Order: sequence, then C-alpha cells, then structure tokens
Amino acid sequence: MPKPLRIALIGSKFMGRAHSNAWLKVGKFFDLPRQPIMQVAAAREAADLEAFASRWGWGRWTTDWRAAATADDVDLVDVGTPNHIHRDQALAALEAGKHVACEKPLAGTLDHAREMMQAARPAAGKTFVWFNYRRVPAVAFAHQLVREGRLGRIYHVRAQYLQSWGGPETPLLWRFRKGQAGTGAHGDLNAHIVDMARFVTGDEITEVTGAIAETFVKERPLPDDPKRTGRSTVDDAVLFLARFKGGAVASFEATRLATGYRNRNRLEVHGERGAISFDFSRMNELAVYDATGEGRTAGWTTVDVTREADGHPYAGHWWPESHGLGYEHGFVNQAADTVRAISRRRPVVPLPDFADAYETQRVLEAALISAKERAPVKLSRVR
Amino acid sequence: MPKPLRIALIGSKFMGRAHSNAWLKVGKFFDLPRQPIMQVAAAREAADLEAFASRWGWGRWTTDWRAAATADDVDLVDVGTPNHIHRDQALAALEAGKHVACEKPLAGTLDHAREMMQAARPAAGKTFVWFNYRRVPAVAFAHQLVREGRLGRIYHVRAQYLQSWGGPETPLLWRFRKGQAGTGAHGDLNAHIVDMARFVTGDEITEVTGAIAETFVKERPLPDDPKRTGRSTVDDAVLFLARFKGGAVASFEATRLATGYRNRNRLEVHGERGAISFDFSRMNELAVYDATGEGRTAGWTTVDVTREADGHPYAGHWWPESHGLGYEHGFVNQAADTVRAISRRRPVVPLPDFADAYETQRVLEAALISAKERAPVKLSRVR
Amino acid sequence: MPKPLRIALIGSKFMGRAHSNAWLKVGKFFDLPRQPIMQVAAAREAADLEAFASRWGWGRWTTDWRAAATADDVDLVDVGTPNHIHRDQALAALEAGKHVACEKPLAGTLDHAREMMQAARPAAGKTFVWFNYRRVPAVAFAHQLVREGRLGRIYHVRAQYLQSWGGPETPLLWRFRKGQAGTGAHGDLNAHIVDMARFVTGDEITEVTGAIAETFVKERPLPDDPKRTGRSTVDDAVLFLARFKGGAVASFEATRLATGYRNRNRLEVHGERGAISFDFSRMNELAVYDATGEGRTAGWTTVDVTREADGHPYAGHWWPESHGLGYEHGFVNQAADTVRAISRRRPVVPLPDFADAYETQRVLEAALISAKERAPVKLSRVR
Amino acid sequence: MPKPLRIALIGSKFMGRAHSNAWLKVGKFFDLPRQPIMQVAAAREAADLEAFASRWGWGRWTTDWRAAATADDVDLVDVGTPNHIHRDQALAALEAGKHVACEKPLAGTLDHAREMMQAARPAAGKTFVWFNYRRVPAVAFAHQLVREGRLGRIYHVRAQYLQSWGGPETPLLWRFRKGQAGTGAHGDLNAHIVDMARFVTGDEITEVTGAIAETFVKERPLPDDPKRTGRSTVDDAVLFLARFKGGAVASFEATRLATGYRNRNRLEVHGERGAISFDFSRMNELAVYDATGEGRTAGWTTVDVTREADGHPYAGHWWPESHGLGYEHGFVNQAADTVRAISRRRPVVPLPDFADAYETQRVLEAALISAKERAPVKLSRVR
Repeated sequence: MPKPLRIALIGSKFMGRAHSNAWLKVGKFFDLPRQPIMQVAAAREAADLEAFASRWGWGRWTTDWRAAATADDVDLVDVGTPNHIHRDQALAALEAGKHVACEKPLAGTLDHAREMMQAARPAAGKTFVWFNYRRVPAVAFAHQLVREGRLGRIYHVRAQYLQSWGGPETPLLWRFRKGQAGTGAHGDLNAHIVDMARFVTGDEITEVTGAIAETFVKERPLPDDPKRTGRSTVDDAVLFLARFKGGAVASFEATRLATGYRNRNRLEVHGERGAISFDFSRMNELAVYDATGEGRTAGWTTVDVTREADGHPYAGHWWPESHGLGYEHGFVNQAADTVRAISRRRPVVPLPDFADAYETQRVLEAALISAKERAPVKLSRVR
Repeated sequence: MPKPLRIALIGSKFMGRAHSNAWLKVGKFFDLPRQPIMQVAAAREAADLEAFASRWGWGRWTTDWRAAATADDVDLVDVGTPNHIHRDQALAALEAGKHVACEKPLAGTLDHAREMMQAARPAAGKTFVWFNYRRVPAVAFAHQLVREGRLGRIYHVRAQYLQSWGGPETPLLWRFRKGQAGTGAHGDLNAHIVDMARFVTGDEITEVTGAIAETFVKERPLPDDPKRTGRSTVDDAVLFLARFKGGAVASFEATRLATGYRNRNRLEVHGERGAISFDFSRMNELAVYDATGEGRTAGWTTVDVTREADGHPYAGHWWPESHGLGYEHGFVNQAADTVRAISRRRPVVPLPDFADAYETQRVLEAALISAKERAPVKLSRVR
Repeated sequence: MPKPLRIALIGSKFMGRAHSNAWLKVGKFFDLPRQPIMQVAAAREAADLEAFASRWGWGRWTTDWRAAATADDVDLVDVGTPNHIHRDQALAALEAGKHVACEKPLAGTLDHAREMMQAARPAAGKTFVWFNYRRVPAVAFAHQLVREGRLGRIYHVRAQYLQSWGGPETPLLWRFRKGQAGTGAHGDLNAHIVDMARFVTGDEITEVTGAIAETFVKERPLPDDPKRTGRSTVDDAVLFLARFKGGAVASFEATRLATGYRNRNRLEVHGERGAISFDFSRMNELAVYDATGEGRTAGWTTVDVTREADGHPYAGHWWPESHGLGYEHGFVNQAADTVRAISRRRPVVPLPDFADAYETQRVLEAALISAKERAPVKLSRVR
Repeated sequence: MPKPLRIALIGSKFMGRAHSNAWLKVGKFFDLPRQPIMQVAAAREAADLEAFASRWGWGRWTTDWRAAATADDVDLVDVGTPNHIHRDQALAALEAGKHVACEKPLAGTLDHAREMMQAARPAAGKTFVWFNYRRVPAVAFAHQLVREGRLGRIYHVRAQYLQSWGGPETPLLWRFRKGQAGTGAHGDLNAHIVDMARFVTGDEITEVTGAIAETFVKERPLPDDPKRTGRSTVDDAVLFLARFKGGAVASFEATRLATGYRNRNRLEVHGERGAISFDFSRMNELAVYDATGEGRTAGWTTVDVTREADGHPYAGHWWPESHGLGYEHGFVNQAADTVRAISRRRPVVPLPDFADAYETQRVLEAALISAKERAPVKLSRVR
C-alpha cells in the first residue's frame, strides 16, 4: 500500500468538480507512488459545500479555506478558486509546507503571480499549475515530437482560443467585471494557448509586437435587473503578435465572440522539417506533417493519439486504441503526473510550476501593455 | 439519502473495468433515485481479482460468481463476462430475483439468447444490455431526431464497424476460436451497429438479403508457440444487406481487417426530410442534413452534441458546451439510465432489455444463415 | 505541326458539352502527338444543335449521326448519347474504320455491350469508354499505389455513389422509364464505381453474392401533367455485395435518394500493407494509410494530388501545386490519353476499351440478376 | 452575333496562361453581351511567345507591349505581367482609351498604384483587377450572405494565406529580390486576403495595429551557382493585426514557410448573427454558421456552393450540382463579369477596379510601415 497523499481542495464550482473527478479517478487508472486521499474540501458557501463534499467523497468540509490549507493532515493543497485569491491561498499553503496545485492562470495580476513565484522558490512544497491542455494526449505528443527535433527549426506558431458565449444578450456576470475577473477572454483563454505554445515549442516569447484588446459589447444587462445595463470592464477579445527566442513568429487570439465556435482551441506550429496542427474539438487527433519523407505521399496525417503499443502519451492507462478520451482526462493525467512529481518521479511530459506559469503571466501582461501603449513590448521589460 | 442499489459485478477484464468506472462515476454526475453500491466483484482468477476489487472499491470479491449473483445483499447483477457464459449467469441472477445488466451481445448463440429472453419475461428483476453506443450523446440525439419525424420516411441505412487489429501477425487468441468466441467480427462489431441501426431508426429488420462471411487469415501463429500455426474458426469480416419493415434498405459491415481504421463505427441514415451521419472517431459530433429548410444554405451541419441549454441528451450532467466526452461516458450514461429504470423513471432514451437484444441477435443469426446458405433469409424464420 | 485527329461528336447535352470542353482544352494543356480538330457535331434536334456547334467551335453540324460517324474527314467518333443508341453508333463508326470513344456505360443492355465488344476486337479503329473518374488525379494515383504493391493483398473494397435528386417530387423523366434508360441509379452510378473499383484494384469481380434493387418512389408526377402520375420502371437504388478474384470482399451502393449527398462518389480499399480512401466531393485529395511505417505517427494522410514535382498523375499539365482541379478535368485528361493511345503512346494510366467496359457491364448485369433471382451469381455465368 | 471585344494580353507566364484559358472558355459557358476576341499577345521574349500565342489561339503576337496595348484593333488590355511594370502598361492603355484588366496586386509600390488609380478616374476605359478569389463561388456567396445581413454586426475577421515553397533550399529567384518583386509573401499573398476580407465584409480597414515582417531565410543559393549564396531582400512572412471601420478586429498572415500548406487560403468572419469559414483547399464548399435558428441543430453547415436551383453564384454556367470547379474557374467567372461590366451589365458580385485595388494597396503599405516603424498606422495617413 503506497503512502497516502492527503489533499485539501479549495473551490467547489466548475474547477472544484473537474479536480474532484481527477482525484477520484487517478488511482483507478494509474499505479501511483502515493495514494491520493480526498481529505478535505473548502469553499465559501456552506450551503452547497456539504452536498458537494459528500457527493465527491471528500472526508470533511469547511468554509475556512485557511484551516483546510494549513491542516496538519494535509499534504497537497489544490487551489480551484477564482484568480484574485490564488495568491493568498497558495502563499498560506506554501508557508505551511504544503505542496500546491493551483488553477490557471497563476494569478489575477502580475504582481500576485510574482509573489507566488518568489514564494515557491525557497518553499519545501512543490508547486503545480493546472494547465490541463498540456496533458491532452495530442498536445503532449506534439511536445514530444518537437522536443525530438521532428519539426526542426520553428518558423510559425498560430494559436487561437475561440468561444462565443459573450454575445450582447449575456448579462454582466462577474466575468465581465475587472475587479473580480482581472481580464476577460485574455486571462481565461489566452492563458491556455500561451502555455500550450510555450510547452509545445519548448521556446520562450521575447516580444509582443502588437496587440488589440477589444470590448465589443460595452453595456450588458444586469443579471438581477435585465432591463437595466451596466458597463463591461474587461476585454471580449485580445489578439496579439509575438516573437519567440528561437526566431519563430506567432499570433494569438482569444475571444468570447467567435460565433460558431463554442470552445475551439487550435494550435498550429510549422517548422523546417514538419508541422503539427491541433484542434481541441477533435482532441484525440493530432495532425502531423512530415516534410522529410516521400514527397508523393506527403500530406497532413491524422494521428489518433490513443495507442499504447505506439507509445502515445498516457494511452496505456486508458481504453483500447481509438476508444477516445474527453475533456476531463487531461485533468486526470495531470493529477497522475502531480503525484509522481511529488514522489520525485518523472512526469510523462513537463509539469508547469509557479515559475513556469509566471512566464506565461508575463506574456499576458506584455500583451495588455502592448494593447494599451500601442507599441511593441519586450518581455525583458515585464518582470 | 436515496435507497441503495447494491451491485454484483461478474468479470474483471476490459468490460469489468468499463463497468466499474461507470458505477464509480454515475453518482457523482447524476442525481439518482437510488444510490449504487459497489458491493461485490466476481471473476474466475483470484490472483488479479483482489487487486481489481481493491482498486475500484468493490466491497468484497469472490471467485464464485454464483454466490455473488445470488447473494442476499445484491440487487443488480452486472454481467461483464465472455458471451458463452452470459446465459448461465443471467439465468441464475434472474432466478434469484435480481435485476440483470448484461454485456452485449446478449449471448454466444441464438439458443442462449432465446432462453435469456424467455427467462426475463416472467422474472421479477428488470433486464438491461450494455449496448453502450446508444448512450453516446450523438447517437441518442440521432434517435430523438428520427423519432420526432425529422428524417421522414427512411430510405437508406449504412452501417460499418471497422477495425484493423486482425492482421496475419495477430496470434490465434481465443477470439479466433469458435468454441469460445462464437463468431469473430460479427458478434463483436455487427452486434453494435445492428443495435444502433434499430435504435436510431426505431424500425426492425425483416430480411437479410445477402451476406458474406469471410476469414481472410485462415492460419494464425499460436500464442504460446509462434513458430507453429493453428486454424482460425471465426469470421474476420461479415457484410450483409437487409431490408427494414418501414421500407428502408441497409448495408452492414464488420471487419477486423480494415487497415487504417482502428475503431471506426459509422452510421448513416437517409430519409425523405433529412439525414444523419455518425462517426465514432468524432463522437461528440452528429452530422445532420435538413432537407426542408432554405436550399441555398443547405448542407451537412456538424452539431456539437454537448449543449445543455439546447437540450442535448445527457449534456447537462457533464462539462460545459464543447468540452467533449469520451468512450467511457456512454457506459456512465447507461448506468444512470439503468438506475432510473429500476426505480421506474424514464431513461433519457430507450434502454435495451433482453427481449430487445434478442431481436438484434436474430438479425445476426439471419446474416450467418444467409452467408452459409447463400440465400436471403426472412427474419420471421429465425426464432 | 502534328498530324490532325479529326473528331465527330454525337450528342449535344450534358456529355456533349463535357466532351466539347475536353476537346477544346486538351491541346492547350497537353503536348499531343496529333492535333484534335473539332470537325463535326451531330445530334437529333437541329434547333439547338447549330447554336451548340457554333458555341463550341465545331466545324460543321448535322442531324444525321451516321453521316458524321462515317464521314471521310473524320478519324475519331465520340459517342455522347443515351445508352440505348451507343451500339448502333459505335458499330457504324467501327465499320467505317474509325476510332470510337463512347460514353459510359458501354451500352444499355449486356447484349448490346457484347456486340460492341465483339465488333471492336477485329476493328481497325481503337475503342475507348469515357469512365472519366479514372482520370481524376486522386483516383489515378490510387491505381498507381495499388499497382506498385503499396496496399499489398487487398481485403476490402467499399464503393458508394450517392445522389439525392430522385425524391417523390421529381417527375417521371425519361430516366425513370426502363425503355429509354435501361436501369436507374444502377447503370448511371454503379457503372462508375464498378469501373473505379476494378481500375484501382486491378482485380476482377468473380461473384455477386447478394443484391437489392429498390424503387422507393413507385409513382411519379408526369412531366407534362403533374396532377397525374405514372409508374417508374427503374431502380432508385441498387446495393450489392461481391467477391474479387484476389480474395477481397466488396460492397457497392448506388442511389438517387441519399438525402444530403448530391454527388458523392466514395471508394475505400483496404489491403494488408495500407489503404486508400477517395471522396469525389474533395476530388483533389486522396487519403492514404501506410501500415508499414512508424506506428507512432501512422494515420490517414490527406495527399493533395496536385504536385508535378512529386510525380502526381497529370499534375504537370495544369496549375501550380494545390491550385485544384474540377470535375471537367477528368475529361480533358482522358481526351489527352485517348489521343496518345491512338498514336501508340502510353496513357498515364490504363484506358478502358470496349472489352474492358464489357467486364463492368457483366458485373452490373450479375447484380441485376442477383437482385431478381434472390441468389448469388457467379460472373462466369454472365457472358 | 454580339459585337466583338478585342483583347490584347501582355504576359505569357503563369498568369498569361490563366488569362488565356479564361478568354478561351468564357464564351463557351456564358452568354455574353460582347464576344471576346483573342486579338494579340505580347511578351518580352520572342522565343516562347510564338508557341504560346499559337497554342492559345491569339490572333497575332508581338514583343512590343506598347504596340499591342495601343493598337487600334484592341478594346481591352489584359495586363498579366510582374508588378513593377503594371503602371506603365496600364497607363499607356488607358491613355489610348482602352479598358484595362490588370493582374493583382495593382502595382509594385503605392506610388505606382496611386498613379494608376488617378489615371483611371478620368479615363474613357473601364478598369479591372484580377482578384480572382472573389469569383470562387464560395467567396462570392460569402459576400452575398454578409451583404444581406446574415452575419449581422461583424466582430472578427481571420485571414491566412499559407504557402511553403520558400524553404532554405529554394534558390534566390527574382521573387526574393526587392528590386524586382517589391515584397515577398506580402504583395503576393496578403494582397489576396486583404481584398477578400474587404470584399466579403463590405467594410474598410482603418488601422493596422501591429505587424511583423520576417525574413527567415536570409541567404539563399544563387540560381546559377548554387554553391554560392545571395541575400534575400524581401519578407518570407508578414503578419498584421487590423481594425475595420465597422468595429471588427482582424488578423492577417501571409507566408511562404508554413510547412504542410502548399496553397492554403483561409478566411473566417464572425458576426453577431452568424459566421462563415472558407478554405481554398476545399474551394467548392463554404462553411456557414447560423446563430439565429434552432439551437439544438445549430452547427457549421458545409454548403456545396454548386447549385443553380439554389441560386449559388455562377453555378448555372457550369456543371450539375456537386460536380466541382477548380482554381481556373475563378478567372473565367471574372472574365465573364468583365465583359458584362464593359457593356454596362451588372456583374454577379462587385468587380474591383483600380480605385478599389488602391484601397487594398494602402492596407498593404500600412502593414509594411507598421512593421518597420514598430507602431500602429492609421490608414488615413497612407495615401
């Protein structure tokens, strides 16, 4: 029987649910060096929390997140709350010597993110950030191919995260208020694709060359009084151009108003020797182009990244080949790698820690500055 | 706290695992009228069974399936074993007054299937068959559209289940031995698409008009002694043509030698008013053609069947729109409907019981007879 | 200046137009050993014919097809008329020592086809049949790959030609009258896919194992008096199963009632070493699966068959890579190969002559017999 | 017999060929108010020109373009030469009172383009620019849908023209020398997608907010002496962000180094009521999303834009539905509309004249300035 890894979860909404499911399943599908124990769940409102904790099998529950995050019988604190409180919760947990797994983006502001990164450096606990798309097998496979040199020198990165729920009829939810949300599509969606682009290429962005932040819908109906409207104070869409250290040029686009696309997360990377194309709506597939083989049969190959026998990442833990996975499996895969990493085992593909996620946050900040100042922004300036 | 529903699972291999996962998750994602309890797991070999039961959280384990199937503290017996023992296990459970959920196909032979169907009729327990593809949301949605008359009179059904693991290098596993497997691709794969075709159209096959059963690879290496070979006694592929009562004509194809397709389950149905096309490799999508709207923008529409707000089946229990599901979710959806049906609640879409699955078995039998006799076979003859 | 090749075209409708366009363009895009001269156009009705001939640049026109087909100043007779008069026109032309290029299918009946095949054997002129899909570059490329052994032993052939214009509202055109049309979807559409399957595999069908011929819409409005209806005497759809000499099993389906598909011509061939998949709606692409390479990146590769540098068939005669071709280009490619063959040059891929097209006609006939007799039909019986 | 329209073509390379084919075919497929006469072809080198003119049926040929452009027996001068000589040729023709149809982009520099635009204003002849993609039926259809308000207020435009022939092994052709080519991918490819974006949206760009112009391959082998290299003086890729007057935000990308894409021209436009997505590699299809209909069956609809009965643009002139067109047909469609416009008939969709193409040129110039100055550039500044 492996040693237990006792977990405190903070947050009981969408991410609370996605993380609970991950902790529930991970031990069933992976042979782990430590056994995850769903020790305690914390959230603000008692009402739903009891039902949530009971449903998912959390050992106990509390509305005092700090108590949960610092409890003696907890090893890992899983932060699944809104961005503006990541810092306080993570810092408390690190201070208490816990490992911390924090939802993305690292924080609501760059200042917070910096503090977290700095606190993580000397801490006893390890840190992790739930950039779940890294562990969609097709994205992990893309990373592996690039790392092996299969794309050669990289020329182009093209990343888009397109949603469409932000039409004029959508009310002024907290997500449209800067005070609570920090940003709009940018922190929510660009965070994912900036991380993915960094992860897949293994390279770092050195400059944001131009950016647009746009709020198409400036007034929205108030949730409680739809006849009146209030002002949206976040972006609906942020687009930016960037340069990578290795010479690649890139474009990023995040929006809540790409009618037709509900949750379209696309990444294309073109290199001298090949290219990859990923679309989350067909998440079990990676399109691969090999420029080094026979020209006559060259083309985009749709690889079903589900085959244990072919060494596809994570495939051996799940179902037979071409019996596809879904959105939730990225979280389970990340839970498995998190447990491994805590036990000094190597994750299947690199895990983002606070320092790593801070780099993504710097890119997001640079894009906001670029949009505001209407000028290119070197990353070296954003610290 | 709802009344418990205590489950005995028989079988610990691929399906044992898929069912365990379903019972583990179902209560987390669905509000159920009874609470599933993973009471006891049974399988032949003690060695692996203990680890299996412990991993999945089964309350106890036994190598005596009969003891499990008839135990006083069991309400539902879940049969996840090979086809040739479905009958004995299901009959024992029904006799003991249990509900029974049996893996597909219903049985290894039509005689067994008939006995099971007959035993189910007067039994106190309800019966279910795990035709999991009915509960892939896109397939359930196709069923709903047809039932509402959105396709009108149906002309064509085209169903294929294409795999490719059965090449000449594949050894003579039990799946290639008639004594154990009954048939090859036919019972394994055609069972699924015959059920899907019946389910989506809501219609019954009245005749198999022609059939080919082919064993391409007649000799295979012995698993234990690959230098020697043995004779495969099952089909590698079965194709057949059929007619439906409502007038549609149909083709079915199942094979283990469709190089390039690992697990491609496709169904197309064309009617007077519209058409649907499903491909399991893109399981979150249903292609829908509406022949009644504006001609100028008519075409195949790719519907992401993931939207609670739009009433897509099962969508409200899972993740936000376009955060797709995987293979395993069909089983969880079926587990939920099974629990509901036991409590006399209506399943989201119809559940197959033994009588229903017997109809599918009759079609499979008719195809085998047709291939052997080289003649059309009316279904009225196969009982 | 190469020697002229003087052409007489018979027919001025859809095919008359497609062939005229081919003869007009072929010398512009191909360097030919003889120069096609559009000498004379013949058709039944004088009214339109003059405008047709003038528009396309035919040197003269006549309503006497026999005069055109036997004129001294004609070298090649191009038969673009309905099926039931192919025989008379082809025989007259062959007797006059002309080369003959005949629209598909070879004839309206097997008897006619046999006569034509027999007449062609001793004739001075060469014969050709316009199975234009052979010269869609993707299909030609599929043929080349199979011939080179890239698929190895072939297991499966799956061919469909799906149209949808034959709904109940479509009037009783001549195409629905057996006397004029011979058959319905069968001769029109199955002719194409049987030829394609034979061409791509390089193999011959030895048996039709089962067949369905269905007339869904039995009564149709009369073209001239839509309040009254008349009886359709042809099939709306014909499906059949078949076996190839080399051991492959096959399914064919042609229909005018596949709602949603306007002109969907699909062919899939699976072999031991690889597979190909073609869909005419994306005619510049061939999907290729190579089972012999690296497993990890194996998948269906979408090959844009447009690259001269990679030796794709016909690519060098047209536009730069990935500047796609359309439906009409198959005819131009065939016109080029026809001129070459007349000059004893090798066509890019094999051209069907009357003997070859007679084999396709035998398969069509066997399917009709099988549907009628409700029994398998060996091809050896159909002569 | 309609009045003739006598044409002088200048240029005998790729575009000379594409235009010749258009003039050859246009009268065969369209009923035109004037009859195009292929009067004279001009080009620099006599050697190939004679063969070219003879092959395509040009009445005479000359190496003196000015003589051709100003000849008394010429009505329309078709300029198919490299960008840096468009101005001289167009001005000479306009001065001689001819109509002028000029290849895109309008000119090699903004100064040239301005002169041409200014010369066109008072001229007797009409002007046209061969932005052929406007007349790919799917693009024309997208334009129509937007114009009818089917997309409502437009939020996003996303345009990419991706090629991959510019790898390091490609020699230092004239296309990589600024003196001859002006720019690299920018003028060649962005010209097309800027025009398409303006055409489809019916809106104008008011600002380039950021831009990257990159030359990945700085030294290339000399064509005549591949052991030595020379410096490439043009961009390999240009990306830029932009804003439209109507409020939409946009991204544009053109590159010769997008490995895997040979000629991928993609445009997506998202509006409040719907969206369209076009990919030239599947040029007969337009993906349309309608946000105003039934939610349950909402999704991207693949419309085969080939149906005369449904009023698809240009469809009635070509082949039956779903018998697709190719690259060359955009040119033929444009030739037809050009002839119509000269006779004061309305083109199917708007034709770009010099004034219109000058607007595209201003956008291209603004992007270059933005890349160079590393700052946003208002279009009002670029004149």
